[in-house]
Amino acid sequence: MPRHDGRAADQLRSIDYVLDIAPHATASVLIAFGNTRVICAATIQDEVPRWMKVQNVQGGWLTAEYSMLPYSTLDRKDRDSSKGRPDGRSIEIQRLIGRSLRAVVDLKKLGQRTLSIDCDVLQADGGTRTASITGACIAASIAFNRLLEKGKITQQPMTKKVAAISAGILRGEALLDLCYVEDRDADVDCNLVLTDTGDFVEIQGSGEEATFTQAQMDAMLAVGRKGIAELCAIQQQAIESAMKPAEAKDLQKLAAFFGKK
Amino acid sequence: MPRHDGRAADQLRSIDYVLDIAPHATASVLIAFGNTRVICAATIQDEVPRWMKVQNVQGGWLTAEYSMLPYSTLDRKDRDSSKGRPDGRSIEIQRLIGRSLRAVVDLKKLGQRTLSIDCDVLQADGGTRTASITGACIAASIAFNRLLEKGKITQQPMTKKVAAISAGILRGEALLDLCYVEDRDADVDCNLVLTDTGDFVEIQGSGEEATFTQAQMDAMLAVGRKGIAELCAIQQQAIESAMKPAEAKDLQKLAAFFGKK
Amino acid sequence: MPRHDGRAADQLRSIDYVLDIAPHATASVLIAFGNTRVICAATIQDEVPRWMKVQNVQGGWLTAEYSMLPYSTLDRKDRDSSKGRPDGRSIEIQRLIGRSLRAVVDLKKLGQRTLSIDCDVLQADGGTRTASITGACIAASIAFNRLLEKGKITQQPMTKKVAAISAGILRGEALLDLCYVEDRDADVDCNLVLTDTGDFVEIQGSGEEATFTQAQMDAMLAVGRKGIAELCAIQQQAIESAMKPAEAKDLQKLAAFFGKK
Amino acid sequence: MPRHDGRAADQLRSIDYVLDIAPHATASVLIAFGNTRVICAATIQDEVPRWMKVQNVQGGWLTAEYSMLPYSTLDRKDRDSSKGRPDGRSIEIQRLIGRSLRAVVDLKKLGQRTLSIDCDVLQADGGTRTASITGACIAASIAFNRLLEKGKITQQPMTKKVAAISAGILRGEALLDLCYVEDRDADVDCNLVLTDTGDFVEIQGSGEEATFTQAQMDAMLAVGRKGIAELCAIQQQAIESAMKPAEAKDLQKLAAFFGKK
Amino acid sequence: MPRHDGRAADQLRSIDYVLDIAPHATASVLIAFGNTRVICAATIQDEVPRWMKVQNVQGGWLTAEYSMLPYSTLDRKDRDSSKGRPDGRSIEIQRLIGRSLRAVVDLKKLGQRTLSIDCDVLQADGGTRTASITGACIAASIAFNRLLEKGKITQQPMTKKVAAISAGILRGEALLDLCYVEDRDADVDCNLVLTDTGDFVEIQGSGEEATFTQAQMDAMLAVGRKGIAELCAIQQQAIESAMKPAEAKDLQKLAAFFGKK
Amino acid sequence: MPRHDGRAADQLRSIDYVLDIAPHATASVLIAFGNTRVICAATIQDEVPRWMKVQNVQGGWLTAEYSMLPYSTLDRKDRDSSKGRPDGRSIEIQRLIGRSLRAVVDLKKLGQRTLSIDCDVLQADGGTRTASITGACIAASIAFNRLLEKGKITQQPMTKKVAAISAGILRGEALLDLCYVEDRDADVDCNLVLTDTGDFVEIQGSGEEATFTQAQMDAMLAVGRKGIAELCAIQQQAIESAMKPAEAKDLQKLAAFFGKK
Repeated sequence: MPRHDGRAADQLRSIDYVLDIAPHATASVLIAFGNTRVICAATIQDEVPRWMKVQNVQGGWLTAEYSMLPYSTLDRKDRDSSKGRPDGRSIEIQRLIGRSLRAVVDLKKLGQRTLSIDCDVLQADGGTRTASITGACIAASIAFNRLLEKGKITQQPMTKKVAAISAGILRGEALLDLCYVEDRDADVDCNLVLTDTGDFVEIQGSGEEATFTQAQMDAMLAVGRKGIAELCAIQQQAIESAMKPAEAKDLQKLAAFFGKK
Repeated sequence: MPRHDGRAADQLRSIDYVLDIAPHATASVLIAFGNTRVICAATIQDEVPRWMKVQNVQGGWLTAEYSMLPYSTLDRKDRDSSKGRPDGRSIEIQRLIGRSLRAVVDLKKLGQRTLSIDCDVLQADGGTRTASITGACIAASIAFNRLLEKGKITQQPMTKKVAAISAGILRGEALLDLCYVEDRDADVDCNLVLTDTGDFVEIQGSGEEATFTQAQMDAMLAVGRKGIAELCAIQQQAIESAMKPAEAKDLQKLAAFFGKK
Repeated sequence: MPRHDGRAADQLRSIDYVLDIAPHATASVLIAFGNTRVICAATIQDEVPRWMKVQNVQGGWLTAEYSMLPYSTLDRKDRDSSKGRPDGRSIEIQRLIGRSLRAVVDLKKLGQRTLSIDCDVLQADGGTRTASITGACIAASIAFNRLLEKGKITQQPMTKKVAAISAGILRGEALLDLCYVEDRDADVDCNLVLTDTGDFVEIQGSGEEATFTQAQMDAMLAVGRKGIAELCAIQQQAIESAMKPAEAKDLQKLAAFFGKK
Repeated sequence: MPRHDGRAADQLRSIDYVLDIAPHATASVLIAFGNTRVICAATIQDEVPRWMKVQNVQGGWLTAEYSMLPYSTLDRKDRDSSKGRPDGRSIEIQRLIGRSLRAVVDLKKLGQRTLSIDCDVLQADGGTRTASITGACIAASIAFNRLLEKGKITQQPMTKKVAAISAGILRGEALLDLCYVEDRDADVDCNLVLTDTGDFVEIQGSGEEATFTQAQMDAMLAVGRKGIAELCAIQQQAIESAMKPAEAKDLQKLAAFFGKK
Repeated sequence: MPRHDGRAADQLRSIDYVLDIAPHATASVLIAFGNTRVICAATIQDEVPRWMKVQNVQGGWLTAEYSMLPYSTLDRKDRDSSKGRPDGRSIEIQRLIGRSLRAVVDLKKLGQRTLSIDCDVLQADGGTRTASITGACIAASIAFNRLLEKGKITQQPMTKKVAAISAGILRGEALLDLCYVEDRDADVDCNLVLTDTGDFVEIQGSGEEATFTQAQMDAMLAVGRKGIAELCAIQQQAIESAMKPAEAKDLQKLAAFFGKK
Repeated sequence: MPRHDGRAADQLRSIDYVLDIAPHATASVLIAFGNTRVICAATIQDEVPRWMKVQNVQGGWLTAEYSMLPYSTLDRKDRDSSKGRPDGRSIEIQRLIGRSLRAVVDLKKLGQRTLSIDCDVLQADGGTRTASITGACIAASIAFNRLLEKGKITQQPMTKKVAAISAGILRGEALLDLCYVEDRDADVDCNLVLTDTGDFVEIQGSGEEATFTQAQMDAMLAVGRKGIAELCAIQQQAIESAMKPAEAKDLQKLAAFFGKK
């Protein structure tokens, strides 16, 4: 049975990105997985949390925050600050983003600095957490490169790249990169966070109102690994392009983001 | 004495905009006053606050929220939600945005609907509140047009356009549209919110650690009125272009935003 | 058309005050603008906020808080603490009070001290923010005089007096010092904060559901300047009387406050 | 050993009051036990809490709030709202005030109304909770009389008067109505809430860092009962005077409050 | 008239306890007053609150917290953390527990340490505060003994034992140790906190919607003193048994679950 | 290399339980995985959340809360309520517990009722979330049986049993049911939630500062499946024993404390 947007079962949505959308950050990227758009910013500051000083812990720190902008969903969502705190889902996601990045960053090489990852969802159509992790890796990597260029650090703290993608079981079939409607209807939802060398960083499989078999788990892993490999190639391209001057063809990339509804 | 970016005393910064950056909103615009960039979104929902129902108030409602994204400032700013609430400055600004829009919107014509204005600052370089009001008017106007097109409302609720600009006294001279450095050094700071017919909606003049004379007030008003007129022309252009299909020259506009740092 | 309490368009309400109503404060005043009564207290403590020490900022600090007592309004108002925070209007007003006082106080001359201004509204009938600023200036000035008397400081930190008054447009006419009913019905409301030398500290004009013209702005300014001059004379008298022993005629002043309803 | 203000062991401080200090309340009184001054306001509103409607409970409700104004103490105290909630001590006291009043009020006779008691401490010198209860009873009683006068209720809901006083053991002696310094140095502190008929409403005896004997308990009760009887006489006088027009001699009473430091 | 569980008017409910139910605490006890079950834990940490260091206060500190587990009541009770804070009743009780223990502990002998008392109610059937104080004294005493055994302190900080019990007036009779139903129906409720030497630590008598006489007060005291004496004997037994190796009959009591550490 | 407590790599810790430790809950169990002890309570109330009524959703609801008692850890942990909310880790765990139970419960069969799961950790030594899920399934199952017995529901809502266990990679070996020290030192930590029929409900594998291979994932799954099967047998036994009258050997286990209700 074909997917409603015509994709093959193991096909990613269109992956696009715009670099440095928020120039006051050390590095930033607006990343799109289809209609899902997330601003991922990496800000490096020359200080570490108070507890690290008190406990005399060497090296740097990495923390992540995730938030959905109120107009990112089809029905406007209340701001976290009007409720006084992020909701449970947001806290869970930002903890996942932080863990995923820390798994591939050697904080010792960062010196007494803090890397803050901010992921703000501009438009939500499923997969905001996987887009966040994938984009955060791009932003963090470019931020580190800029520190290296300025001579503030001498070794690259990022040891591997990390990317994330969802897979699910819908009508018995393992599908890659679920959009909102597929995610809502799927029996099982699995988020995979892997390195560019194919190792696991995180695996989270969940059947909210259902259960799933080992065979289904294996099928989701298979399509997931394919998607991760493609995302890692796109990450590499983005990180390299940040080192180059902006070119004419970027204009076409921007058009993919805006001006149409 | 020349301004550090070469502008004349009564000259606006470069004003740019990208429409529909957040397509789940009814209308949205990324507006730039020089390096200041704000996402202004207008979301119309088919319900009114509970107190309106209880008190049986007819017509619609309009509310505004303002927030600075953590990476919008040169030093990363803590999220409102990590402090549990917006800070005093944010509350003051979002109340100003709401009042300014309500002055030019006939809520009776909106029906039992709520228009939520969200202003999220992507990059802050002075004038975030004036860019917010000016952008919010564009987004609200387009959102109303879309309701009219769909036949949900039959009369345009926006009776006039509203725009805002800052003026200040720096080294004795009245300057228009202060950037962050000018705002920091100015003796007096004045925010003007006017309609496209030249009437006042709000005037807020303040000498935080200083006082100012009637003559200085008049000089700020003079440059301010000039700036407001120019902004209203740009608003008109933006609102009209939202009704047209995206064109090739938009690509050049987008390039003005991104890809350079 | 006459005002409902018989005042002329440019006439203040009866302005009364009782000094040192809260003797544990360094200085305090219960000020009345007609039926509006505000307790303004100035407390000077021998310490500065932590951030001033950390950033090694010299001189003192001045901060203000504003709150409406629950029984100050015709319908009992919930306490801020039962909502967990001051509401947006209160935050806006206390920021205005703080800015207004800082404009006329040379914090360097205060030494490493903090002046806390507290304005608690005992009865609200319009103009609570203008009564607060006017009374806060009296309390702060007396508090400084007491520090001078004790030799704790050697120079008067208050360089000018500051007073505030409202003006508005009601049925086409510019009125001074609006009471609650006039404020509710006015098309435009303007709050003026000026020094005793006639310079501006703040000007805030707003037409919540309306707009206003330059001519209306000028008319409000004209009546406002007259009111400010009268308030400054009363402030001067209050500050001087605090230096004198209490006299018999004070009893008559007190009777103006209490015992009648 | 004489008390530092010359009082006998079983002597109250000077008890003063000013009626209707906050005229928007149904009734209010500024009561002073020596240097302790508390604003007690009783506000009656024509509604009951939501839970009473849901559970279909007949009659009215009575609730109390207690707060210290920031300038009531020798060192300025942070506002409850800046901490987001009343502190533990305030909560304990406001619960005590509410229980004490409910013991002498027949809520059935109040109809579907809520009586809100607000006690705001203007100056604290020991005994703020006993002054609050004693003043709250005056304010509530006058408020009920005004409802009777207006014919809104037909029976007096207050069945008895209630008053409160502290007693303590200092250097082995039972003292009545402790001021701050005596309270700080006392080994035992006891708060008595009794009716004008001599029955207990509450008794709270506590030796924070000490214990006390039955004989000491009895001695505190003896002086306490004497104080309560005197307070009840003053309450009666205050309630009656509220029914009379203000007289010249009130001026002398007011002078006892203000103008001296 | 007989009590519904057949007890005599001056008879305690069955008092049971299990020691060291939470072995990570320095000492803990699950205490039962009939169907009321409270976990009381005493945790001693080698640090004092920050304010003690700042103010250079010698000796240790003692603090208490009280909470009802959500399933302790017949209708499930919301968690304090879902409301953001303990409710007024819980705050009042934890302050009482803290004061009661501090009255019999010489904090100087504790050194620079903090004793945290935690009382978590597992099942509530009246008397949770009296069970908490009585159990907290057991846990604190055992915790101190363990510090003495390890040589961390050289003198016993607990100077006396403290126990608590309720008494009340129901249908004119003074009853000891009220269960929930009796407490709900009683006209007067009195909580007594006494030492094992018969001195008062706290006395709190309250007639929420009623008043009571001196004779009723005396009758409640008489049954209360009898109950306290019995509780102190049980405390002594519990504290001694903690010093002994587990014995055969304890094994039956604790069985597989509680006899191992 | 042997485990520090002598267990085989695929061996569970000792699993113990006491039923109905909190008799006011519909069903409760104190479950122990070695030194980890969690109180799991299931409370069924005859109402559903407000949003279900508003949206007219049929059937019941199931929600879960997780909290660590302050004395459950080696260093005392602050209460959630003193911080105003559960921390991120607690929120993540309680969401996991809720999802896990909902996967095996048919809420339609529960009628208009809410099942609240409360998991309070009495002692933490690794695996608190797996013990919570395993115990919550026991408590929920018994609670449903009691509803069936009383005829309140006619069909068993729990369709399968669900249990959870951790597995990890330590020094290259896959270990089952990690205690705190093993969890702290493990390179990878995996939590498995499976049904008694061997299907997945959740799988969460994470290498906080590390990555892991497919082979390691498979090894953890293998030991995990063995542990789950053993846990499901214990669950079955517990649920059945709740249906039987207390037997002699239970009396020894529960003794004077727990065998009475």
